[in-house]
Amino acid sequence: MALSVLYAGRPARWPEFQPPLEAEFAKAGLDVHLATDFAPETVDYIVFSPTGPVSDFTPFTRAKAVLSLWAGVEKVVGNETLTQPLCRMVDDGLTLGMTEWVTGHVLRHHLDIDKDVTRSAGNWDAEIPPLAPERPITILGLGELGRAAAAPLIGLGFPVTGWSRSPKSVPYMTCLHGKDGLKDALKTAEILVLLLPNTPATENILNADTMGLLPKGAVVINPGRGPLINDEDLLAALDAGQIGHATLDVFRVEPLPEGHPFWHHPKVTVTPHIAADTRPSTSAKVIAENVRRSEAGEPLLHLVDRHLGY
Amino acid sequence: MALSVLYAGRPARWPEFQPPLEAEFAKAGLDVHLATDFAPETVDYIVFSPTGPVSDFTPFTRAKAVLSLWAGVEKVVGNETLTQPLCRMVDDGLTLGMTEWVTGHVLRHHLDIDKDVTRSAGNWDAEIPPLAPERPITILGLGELGRAAAAPLIGLGFPVTGWSRSPKSVPYMTCLHGKDGLKDALKTAEILVLLLPNTPATENILNADTMGLLPKGAVVINPGRGPLINDEDLLAALDAGQIGHATLDVFRVEPLPEGHPFWHHPKVTVTPHIAADTRPSTSAKVIAENVRRSEAGEPLLHLVDRHLGY
Repeated sequence: MALSVLYAGRPARWPEFQPPLEAEFAKAGLDVHLATDFAPETVDYIVFSPTGPVSDFTPFTRAKAVLSLWAGVEKVVGNETLTQPLCRMVDDGLTLGMTEWVTGHVLRHHLDIDKDVTRSAGNWDAEIPPLAPERPITILGLGELGRAAAAPLIGLGFPVTGWSRSPKSVPYMTCLHGKDGLKDALKTAEILVLLLPNTPATENILNADTMGLLPKGAVVINPGRGPLINDEDLLAALDAGQIGHATLDVFRVEPLPEGHPFWHHPKVTVTPHIAADTRPSTSAKVIAENVRRSEAGEPLLHLVDRHLGY
Repeated sequence: MALSVLYAGRPARWPEFQPPLEAEFAKAGLDVHLATDFAPETVDYIVFSPTGPVSDFTPFTRAKAVLSLWAGVEKVVGNETLTQPLCRMVDDGLTLGMTEWVTGHVLRHHLDIDKDVTRSAGNWDAEIPPLAPERPITILGLGELGRAAAAPLIGLGFPVTGWSRSPKSVPYMTCLHGKDGLKDALKTAEILVLLLPNTPATENILNADTMGLLPKGAVVINPGRGPLINDEDLLAALDAGQIGHATLDVFRVEPLPEGHPFWHHPKVTVTPHIAADTRPSTSAKVIAENVRRSEAGEPLLHLVDRHLGY
């Protein structure tokens, strides 16, 4: 009998996701009925995003797993109706996209490309930036995304420091951890990239105190999660010159309301949560593989630890 | 007896160049007198740039070599008074700087970062770019700079095609050469990077015909040499939409005159010849090594082939 897989992602993306999901289920040798509506008690697996229709998991009495299309699960991990195993998305395409975005914006700030984009006619002023080996970069978060984003920066010769909650080791990177490690990781960071999950332990990790540890004029790049930053503290640090520029892709409220000061601050660049988009073609493979594993009694990939929150 | 080495680079940069040059001569065990003025007939080596005071090499009867501070030697290679061996600068710092600049501007166009830099308040429109593996890039020129600039792009997953006059082989890159190879190299190039030397064979290599071979809307990035491009043809191709954007760091006349249409075209970004600057600390090592080699009777590094022009 066919497995019933509910697509409960953003409805507008169903036409993009249906063909690759069906193709990948077939490739995995699975007999699947994929649809956007089922009687809840007949559903075997839920393909989920917080922008989809499901917020109460109670009626899905038979569902064996909830397979998130998003890498970040903070909007669902605390849902008390969710009793099924929850898997994060770790998608090659999402990781590649994030890596490109981080490398692009680090180089943009390193080379001061904004000056060139907005250069007025006849302005031949040249300021030669330091070379990459003279520009220390720190990445907070050494998960899949943080490690992937570091690689091209290391290849370009930037001295990269990484920080994580628990000790990690990454080749060619200075790895620090814990509270004391955070202080040292911030002290040298001329460019700071936030790629932490959003958990109670990381909320507001960038605040007046921690920003005060950065070199004066440091650049903050946040493609991670909005609540990592205390917004008011960031605005104050920008006004004081402690932070030279902030490029922000994620926010506490999205879309970022038009009246929010970030839109209007000359030292803030807002991007509309584009750094890492789940790509249908690559993420469908991950979903199909997890259904196959579950049916074969093998361990699920990227299973969320409900206690840690990621 | 001390060797007399004339600094004939740009006078304004003498204070930057003097200390590292003296330090590197000392490290190489050379007894050198370095200065900006000598009786010409007493000079042993000339450290040269076209922005310095020397244009007639005739009186330098004893000079054993002219050591260029610039990678490009087109402004001096045809000088009929130059009978001494001429060496190009191949400087780690210059190569690193070029690599950073090319990677930064390729990613800027790939990710459409200009849209973010100039984004108006409240504009949450997201256009997700293709991933790097879906964005073919072509580099014309596979010398030191072209090969170095390709490496991070290949690492990021871009399909990179390289083209050179004579056959070359570079790992993980499709290498084409010659006239037919040029056509194939252009056909796929959504982003085209020009890193050719300026010779009679490369002048106007980007013209109406060759631009017509590019995919519609292709981006041209020129950190190489100004005369590689036919300026009028480029402006026409931009107006016709055949070229989507041009980012130009080098020009036939520099500084680019304020009245030049490139300054005023909305699809052109002008940068003031900053992609690859000779860095005093790294280039001084190359100069000192060549003086050491010459004195020891060893072959000079980066000797220019006067016939090829580079």
